[in-house]
Amino acid sequence: MPDTVFVLNGPNLNLLGLREPDIYGHDTLDDIAGMLEDRARELGLAIDLRQSNHEGHLVDWLHEAQAVKAKAVLLNAGGFTHTSVAVHDAIKSVVTPVIEVHLSNPHRRESFRHVSLIGQAAKGTIAGFGALSYLLALEAAARF
Amino acid sequence: MPDTVFVLNGPNLNLLGLREPDIYGHDTLDDIAGMLEDRARELGLAIDLRQSNHEGHLVDWLHEAQAVKAKAVLLNAGGFTHTSVAVHDAIKSVVTPVIEVHLSNPHRRESFRHVSLIGQAAKGTIAGFGALSYLLALEAAARF
Amino acid sequence: MPDTVFVLNGPNLNLLGLREPDIYGHDTLDDIAGMLEDRARELGLAIDLRQSNHEGHLVDWLHEAQAVKAKAVLLNAGGFTHTSVAVHDAIKSVVTPVIEVHLSNPHRRESFRHVSLIGQAAKGTIAGFGALSYLLALEAAARF
Amino acid sequence: MPDTVFVLNGPNLNLLGLREPDIYGHDTLDDIAGMLEDRARELGLAIDLRQSNHEGHLVDWLHEAQAVKAKAVLLNAGGFTHTSVAVHDAIKSVVTPVIEVHLSNPHRRESFRHVSLIGQAAKGTIAGFGALSYLLALEAAARF
Amino acid sequence: MPDTVFVLNGPNLNLLGLREPDIYGHDTLDDIAGMLEDRARELGLAIDLRQSNHEGHLVDWLHEAQAVKAKAVLLNAGGFTHTSVAVHDAIKSVVTPVIEVHLSNPHRRESFRHVSLIGQAAKGTIAGFGALSYLLALEAAARF
Amino acid sequence: MPDTVFVLNGPNLNLLGLREPDIYGHDTLDDIAGMLEDRARELGLAIDLRQSNHEGHLVDWLHEAQAVKAKAVLLNAGGFTHTSVAVHDAIKSVVTPVIEVHLSNPHRRESFRHVSLIGQAAKGTIAGFGALSYLLALEAAARF
Amino acid sequence: MPDTVFVLNGPNLNLLGLREPDIYGHDTLDDIAGMLEDRARELGLAIDLRQSNHEGHLVDWLHEAQAVKAKAVLLNAGGFTHTSVAVHDAIKSVVTPVIEVHLSNPHRRESFRHVSLIGQAAKGTIAGFGALSYLLALEAAARF
Amino acid sequence: MPDTVFVLNGPNLNLLGLREPDIYGHDTLDDIAGMLEDRARELGLAIDLRQSNHEGHLVDWLHEAQAVKAKAVLLNAGGFTHTSVAVHDAIKSVVTPVIEVHLSNPHRRESFRHVSLIGQAAKGTIAGFGALSYLLALEAAARF
Amino acid sequence: MPDTVFVLNGPNLNLLGLREPDIYGHDTLDDIAGMLEDRARELGLAIDLRQSNHEGHLVDWLHEAQAVKAKAVLLNAGGFTHTSVAVHDAIKSVVTPVIEVHLSNPHRRESFRHVSLIGQAAKGTIAGFGALSYLLALEAAARF
Amino acid sequence: MPDTVFVLNGPNLNLLGLREPDIYGHDTLDDIAGMLEDRARELGLAIDLRQSNHEGHLVDWLHEAQAVKAKAVLLNAGGFTHTSVAVHDAIKSVVTPVIEVHLSNPHRRESFRHVSLIGQAAKGTIAGFGALSYLLALEAAARF
Amino acid sequence: MPDTVFVLNGPNLNLLGLREPDIYGHDTLDDIAGMLEDRARELGLAIDLRQSNHEGHLVDWLHEAQAVKAKAVLLNAGGFTHTSVAVHDAIKSVVTPVIEVHLSNPHRRESFRHVSLIGQAAKGTIAGFGALSYLLALEAAARF
Amino acid sequence: MPDTVFVLNGPNLNLLGLREPDIYGHDTLDDIAGMLEDRARELGLAIDLRQSNHEGHLVDWLHEAQAVKAKAVLLNAGGFTHTSVAVHDAIKSVVTPVIEVHLSNPHRRESFRHVSLIGQAAKGTIAGFGALSYLLALEAAARF
Repeated sequence: MPDTVFVLNGPNLNLLGLREPDIYGHDTLDDIAGMLEDRARELGLAIDLRQSNHEGHLVDWLHEAQAVKAKAVLLNAGGFTHTSVAVHDAIKSVVTPVIEVHLSNPHRRESFRHVSLIGQAAKGTIAGFGALSYLLALEAAARF
Repeated sequence: MPDTVFVLNGPNLNLLGLREPDIYGHDTLDDIAGMLEDRARELGLAIDLRQSNHEGHLVDWLHEAQAVKAKAVLLNAGGFTHTSVAVHDAIKSVVTPVIEVHLSNPHRRESFRHVSLIGQAAKGTIAGFGALSYLLALEAAARF
Repeated sequence: MPDTVFVLNGPNLNLLGLREPDIYGHDTLDDIAGMLEDRARELGLAIDLRQSNHEGHLVDWLHEAQAVKAKAVLLNAGGFTHTSVAVHDAIKSVVTPVIEVHLSNPHRRESFRHVSLIGQAAKGTIAGFGALSYLLALEAAARF
Repeated sequence: MPDTVFVLNGPNLNLLGLREPDIYGHDTLDDIAGMLEDRARELGLAIDLRQSNHEGHLVDWLHEAQAVKAKAVLLNAGGFTHTSVAVHDAIKSVVTPVIEVHLSNPHRRESFRHVSLIGQAAKGTIAGFGALSYLLALEAAARF
Repeated sequence: MPDTVFVLNGPNLNLLGLREPDIYGHDTLDDIAGMLEDRARELGLAIDLRQSNHEGHLVDWLHEAQAVKAKAVLLNAGGFTHTSVAVHDAIKSVVTPVIEVHLSNPHRRESFRHVSLIGQAAKGTIAGFGALSYLLALEAAARF
Repeated sequence: MPDTVFVLNGPNLNLLGLREPDIYGHDTLDDIAGMLEDRARELGLAIDLRQSNHEGHLVDWLHEAQAVKAKAVLLNAGGFTHTSVAVHDAIKSVVTPVIEVHLSNPHRRESFRHVSLIGQAAKGTIAGFGALSYLLALEAAARF
Repeated sequence: MPDTVFVLNGPNLNLLGLREPDIYGHDTLDDIAGMLEDRARELGLAIDLRQSNHEGHLVDWLHEAQAVKAKAVLLNAGGFTHTSVAVHDAIKSVVTPVIEVHLSNPHRRESFRHVSLIGQAAKGTIAGFGALSYLLALEAAARF
Repeated sequence: MPDTVFVLNGPNLNLLGLREPDIYGHDTLDDIAGMLEDRARELGLAIDLRQSNHEGHLVDWLHEAQAVKAKAVLLNAGGFTHTSVAVHDAIKSVVTPVIEVHLSNPHRRESFRHVSLIGQAAKGTIAGFGALSYLLALEAAARF
Repeated sequence: MPDTVFVLNGPNLNLLGLREPDIYGHDTLDDIAGMLEDRARELGLAIDLRQSNHEGHLVDWLHEAQAVKAKAVLLNAGGFTHTSVAVHDAIKSVVTPVIEVHLSNPHRRESFRHVSLIGQAAKGTIAGFGALSYLLALEAAARF
Repeated sequence: MPDTVFVLNGPNLNLLGLREPDIYGHDTLDDIAGMLEDRARELGLAIDLRQSNHEGHLVDWLHEAQAVKAKAVLLNAGGFTHTSVAVHDAIKSVVTPVIEVHLSNPHRRESFRHVSLIGQAAKGTIAGFGALSYLLALEAAARF
Repeated sequence: MPDTVFVLNGPNLNLLGLREPDIYGHDTLDDIAGMLEDRARELGLAIDLRQSNHEGHLVDWLHEAQAVKAKAVLLNAGGFTHTSVAVHDAIKSVVTPVIEVHLSNPHRRESFRHVSLIGQAAKGTIAGFGALSYLLALEAAARF
Repeated sequence: MPDTVFVLNGPNLNLLGLREPDIYGHDTLDDIAGMLEDRARELGLAIDLRQSNHEGHLVDWLHEAQAVKAKAVLLNAGGFTHTSVAVHDAIKSVVTPVIEVHLSNPHRRESFRHVSLIGQAAKGTIAGFGALSYLLALEAAARF
């Protein structure tokens, strides 16, 4: 059975493709899931992509990632990136490596997006490449 | 079928009328719902009033407002007003106009209530009039 | 004789309708006065609308509102909103209820507009609805 | 029937004993529950210990504590300690006395843990004694 | 002809005795004028007491104080104390000694009253003694 | 009839030549007016130089500049430079180009002079050249 | 001979019971000493309670606690809590465990009481329970 | 026996007259004591003037002032003015009225002297008049 | 002739593999060059890797990248990341897409590394994967 | 031989006319040089215009300006304006008068451009007039 | 009789050699005294080394240094370095040159140690060389 | 062959003796070099003194110091002291001990000189003794 990579998505990412496409692009989360699954198959990996608008689910799923021995977590925490000590602590609570992913480049946006509590806990960050950010993160995860 | 106006209420507003009445007044959320429904009927509108202590529900419901083509959202985000980038992003994610509502005037309270992430995304703000704040917001929504 | 509501307008509001219409709308201050008077008549109230570019006049008029036993003051202090301790103190000096009014939503503009010294003294705030902000404030004042 | 003390635990505390044991110690939440129940019995009290990664549940449970006339709440809000106005407001919304509890001493950790929104609402704070922090809080609660 | 001491009063001080008496006391500005004139006569001095809600008048009068060779200025700039670079510059522009006067003690009030632009230019400060603050300042001025 | 350039001067500039000459030089405002008029004549322009210690007058005059189709405004707002959102808004309210002028270089003085609300709205800034600052600004205005 | 627990009290705590009883309660320091001695005897411990208004004495006594092999120090540093790097360093200089104690909850008071230099060095903190804070700290110390 | 006014002086004031005379003047503390005693005699009061470089002594003496029923305290806390929560608390701990006195005007000096913890607790402040500051404070105290 | 990707490295990166290997890893810049060249060949691209300790060279090379129509720039600006407005402006001055690369994750290090002036101008960021960061950036560049 | 005016240009100004023309205009640095040389000839002056992307060259050239007894320096330090203490110190190190020049008005751009370390050392500033800024600075320099 | 150099040591330095030896080294204060006395003898100087945990003693001794015409003061103010305006003022009060000494390098430690009120008054600073810091300071003092 | 000590000097230090002698003294860099060489000879050491206005050269030379096994580096980074993360990183990149040297005492100058990025990486600091600062640093280096 292939190793699984969790792809966890935070608030409003369910609207991807519909929401502010000049910032977030036209790909939907399903498009991204499909793209990731194609590449995962080539790499001998499985993808478990989830989305929630609830901070608590991201915490729960990070715990689950460790419990099911996921190979890695790709985490786009959306708006929680800048405010959630709870998700920050969850990342530190598990040994599973976590990669911070963003579609847009938060440093080019409002100043309240320049602080990343996720980045202070995650192994690394990939931001600003649209859907490609996820794919690059998968490449990184494949080499852990 | 009449246009619907969502009236979304965040944490602790279920205790309205019971909680710190010198700040928040003696009306319960049910009282406010009744008052809004009366006036909505006159305006040819319907009210869908909800309350949750979960940030994620507010995000979910803002999405739903757009999905069901609600005419507008009246949003009293409670304590999330000052901390939630997720709700801020949700407001920006939808085209439905959102009006920020507060019972009390946050600028007259603790300094951590002087920043409004909701206000930075909402169309407008009505604060400080107790239950009347909701009614005025409904008047505004009726004219969109 | 009907109760009077003062409608006090600060700097640059005399240019309303001409000045940056994408921010402030196309209504002139006369249009707003007319609209308010129509509604006031229905409510059995009179309107006394004034405008000045002088901070001192706003202070003078707030005192006058109390002296003539005005029912309420609608106050759009313009640029003084963010800088005037004098107007803040004037509001606190009188028992006449004062409602802060803004055409645009200051929280969506430059960060120096996020602080409101007026809001820290006023009973409530209505912002972001263009000329309608004044009308909603009048509705609120009518119920005091 | 004995008086009940609620023991509410926030995000990541379900991993206690597994997570960063040099910071949080080797006791699991079950160990703590056992220890508290033993002592509660001696004091003629009952314990209702819960844990959630969802901010909303902490708010719900604080309301419930009042509804069921709990004697007191011991609250370890985890990462929400530093960010949650919603939980702060919930504590203020209820008359049940709330004691802030921490396993570690937040003042010796990252600077974003030096601010406590919980502490600004709670009756008192006990921090830095590992599992013993809970027990001391129970002693305090027993004397209310 | 006796030397004259200017006693300049800024915004809202015309309401003295009426406005927030728990902060500002029950003496009116006329009471203070009378008291100052009595004592000035003993000291062989004349008093010229004025009040305006206009920042510009305070600047004008400070210039006039120098032009008429006033012995000193007692200045209670009210709300301009904390915001007016213009009055600060006016004090520095004249050689007439200026004494900052306050009825209440600004350091015990809101934090925006802890900064004094007047104090950064004035010779000295007397604050917190109610009407007596003016009298003490007159004693000081008499010895220049 | 020649195009007119408004030369607006804020608080304390009436004392020019008398006030702190080591900072502001020995030229009076009349000297500067004479010098500007001489040069304006050569350029086929007229000068309308005014001074007031009242913030409101600066706002009024900026409006007037637009109403009379002045070619440009040279604005030395004195102490209002650092505090006046009202003047900032007035500059933005008119299409007449406004040039910020200072006799001294504010960046070499107290830190509260390092922020310029005028500079955030004006077309450009000329500071630090004494009376020559005005003349250079006139040269600039002549080429608009 | 029983192990000794030092109970060190900083400035103004000699006035306990007399000073601002709504904040600090009605127990005197002697009452607290008595209460602690009673409980210490049960625990087989001795109490050495001292008070000084001198920062230097607290530093001296912390050194002495180590020199005499005290079991632990309960430290209520009063106003030094928020300002004393010297006491902070003293705590770090000794191996004796130190518990920070407060009668009131500093987080509910002025913002300058929200920073604790003591808390950044101490093992743990107990605050907000009046005299009971000391007793709980003794319970904790007894288990070291 | 006449009422006593305590005149408490903090660090470095023993060097008065010797130390930086351009800031603090040429009067020694003995000169000031003499001047105060002369005036006190006229007012039917006694003076108890003390100086210490120890923060703890100022706290002790403030307590003593209350114990001996002193009429008032004139307090020049020197450098402790800006740093001492302990003295701030001592002032609040006693009912004896305390007047903050300074020889120089701290607002015209380094920015770390612009904050006064003493001023946040004292009844009033007199600063900037050299030795005369003490005498004016005595006049104020005589009227309590 | 293949498209070229510039790989520009800022200060201290010449010491890579020698310098603080627990932070930056054991790969030298030559190792990274080799790895990138291998992958570039597969992608039909050429690599032009340079390093300098001079801020000016990075600016020069960014200009050169545009002049020679490089396909993209991978930029690890080292310490200039946090301080260089000049490099920030250079990135904005050219149309060539620039990807910010870091070996370590700056958000997990000292707080002065949490601000990225480069990130505020670059298309995207890849940080925290050691030498792999460069390779992922090359993958991204290949798809532009 | 005519007096020489140095015209020193910092990073990215070599791209002038190509780079972000909506901010910086369409004139190239050569166009500006030509324009300045024409005017200099009329004024009996020579121009020595240089550009570098290296902070060190600006420092070197400021020293050289003094060594060759240049009449003045016009300095557009580009991005170093906001960050370079070294150039600030170089200006202070030489007696040659230095005029800060900017094409755009930095106060209307990102907040990190609102601080000018150059302005804190230079004689004066001319900003916001495009290429004309240089010409006005030359006029000023001609009169030194 | 040889000139004397005072060597004043603040809080916790009595524990030197025992306290946190990885930060402060293994030399005791007696070791340092011996080392200084040996070198002082060669230089024809005498050493007067003292230590106190009381801020007031440091102030007293700085005054004494001037009174006895000490050649210089070496001052390691320990934790008072970062908090004591009183010691800062004492250094300014005396003409005796004062050298700030630290065993460790405060800039490499907690951020609250990055500010030195002592350094803002002292002639110079020597920090980071362990016991050698004192010896180097003595060399400097010998040349005054 | 004797061990070599690098003496690296940053921007504007080539003007030493000419530049602001009241701050930096009358010694030239050559004078300092001579003085250091004399003392180095006595200590059996060689001096390699360099100066550059280019940040990059300081980084290069720090690397070179390690490459040639220099005994130590004395570094006066001039204006880069307060701004250069690149030099900070270079110091951390090498094992050669680096001593921060300043002629003047930066803590007594402008507040932007109170932060030292060099001091956060260097072994120790010697500042405020003019040319003697270098000599003392050489003494320290000789004992490494």
